[in-house]
Amino acid sequence: MARDTRDRILDAASRLFSERGFDGTAVAEVLALAGVRSGSLYHFFAGKEALAEAVVARCADRLREALLDPAEAAASDPLERVFALVGLWRRGLENGAPGAADPTGLLAAELAARRPTIGRLAEGYGARLATRVRGWLDAAGPRLPAGTDRGELAGFVFTVLEGATMQSRAAGSVEPFDRAVGQLRLLFSLLEGAARAAPVPVTGKAEQPAATVRTDGDPAGWRAW
Amino acid sequence: MARDTRDRILDAASRLFSERGFDGTAVAEVLALAGVRSGSLYHFFAGKEALAEAVVARCADRLREALLDPAEAAASDPLERVFALVGLWRRGLENGAPGAADPTGLLAAELAARRPTIGRLAEGYGARLATRVRGWLDAAGPRLPAGTDRGELAGFVFTVLEGATMQSRAAGSVEPFDRAVGQLRLLFSLLEGAARAAPVPVTGKAEQPAATVRTDGDPAGWRAW
Repeated sequence: MARDTRDRILDAASRLFSERGFDGTAVAEVLALAGVRSGSLYHFFAGKEALAEAVVARCADRLREALLDPAEAAASDPLERVFALVGLWRRGLENGAPGAADPTGLLAAELAARRPTIGRLAEGYGARLATRVRGWLDAAGPRLPAGTDRGELAGFVFTVLEGATMQSRAAGSVEPFDRAVGQLRLLFSLLEGAARAAPVPVTGKAEQPAATVRTDGDPAGWRAW
Repeated sequence: MARDTRDRILDAASRLFSERGFDGTAVAEVLALAGVRSGSLYHFFAGKEALAEAVVARCADRLREALLDPAEAAASDPLERVFALVGLWRRGLENGAPGAADPTGLLAAELAARRPTIGRLAEGYGARLATRVRGWLDAAGPRLPAGTDRGELAGFVFTVLEGATMQSRAAGSVEPFDRAVGQLRLLFSLLEGAARAAPVPVTGKAEQPAATVRTDGDPAGWRAW
């Protein structure tokens, strides 16, 4: 029962933060959407920032069940799993369903400077997502060029999701998201084409080794996730 | 003199919003950094939201002189202009110099839902940036595959800048930005490689026509910029 109340508050806060940002959301609106009194909220959370932190922590906890496992189940082809994940992410953006839309990136950008825990949770979130994507990219084996740094590419998928989400929020439409995904598909098509053409390191690597393809292992410790 | 005061306030607000977001910035901090009294601020701006709107409007106004023209001047090669722009953007992130760091994306994400003008200004900003980049991509001619939608690719450069900026803010480091730029370079290397290999539509187009390469002209009216 207490658990239900806490979850209801977090569902409401997650949805409102996702739609309006931290500052744009009044605690009174969270209470109204969750159907609870302020005493219940302050029983669980010391204040609005603590509530935001709990929302981000829960998103990170739920990432596996909400996005990663369903994406893996939705496609058997390892590269299509990447786009199944993208599709699930998009559904969260579009529906604004409680718990579906993910305010992690926005809350981290707004709050990390004064609440470092939120920045760390958001980084952990990105790292977990990228680690799973990296596993899919590894499973794609020779369908990607031999020289591709799959860890970097996995991190880039998350960068694109974040940027596309920001643009879609500003535009109030999923159209920018879809356009960005089209270009991400282009990148993957090119990688597959390059792998088919020559099962050796990707074109251009010799010209721009440092910036183009990183091969220095696991600099951010992503494998720890 | 009045103009100076207004600019000083906007410089301070731009820097603080960029570092801490809208909510994380107190009007008193803007006043302290700008070295003005609250009367001066409220002489020019009706309130904190109006101040944020003016910051975003000024970023859009200054985009040409602050980023686009310098990027064009920094490189004669049209594709290297894209990365000159990326480098200038990065400098803003790194320095936190007044007026250099650009809070447009963050303010739009935070405020667009309740202050639509900010969303529209941010979209205009992205559209102007993408239009200039598109011109560079057009100038690259046959160095990019014939089937590439250069408008979509230009918009994607902005998506990556936004996503990488968000991640760098959350991490408090430019490292995520640099990693994303490495992958953007990879995309361009692959495009150039594909163009060299076959001066015809890019690999994979036939398999995923709608998502991979759009050829439906100018759906968002970007050419108007």
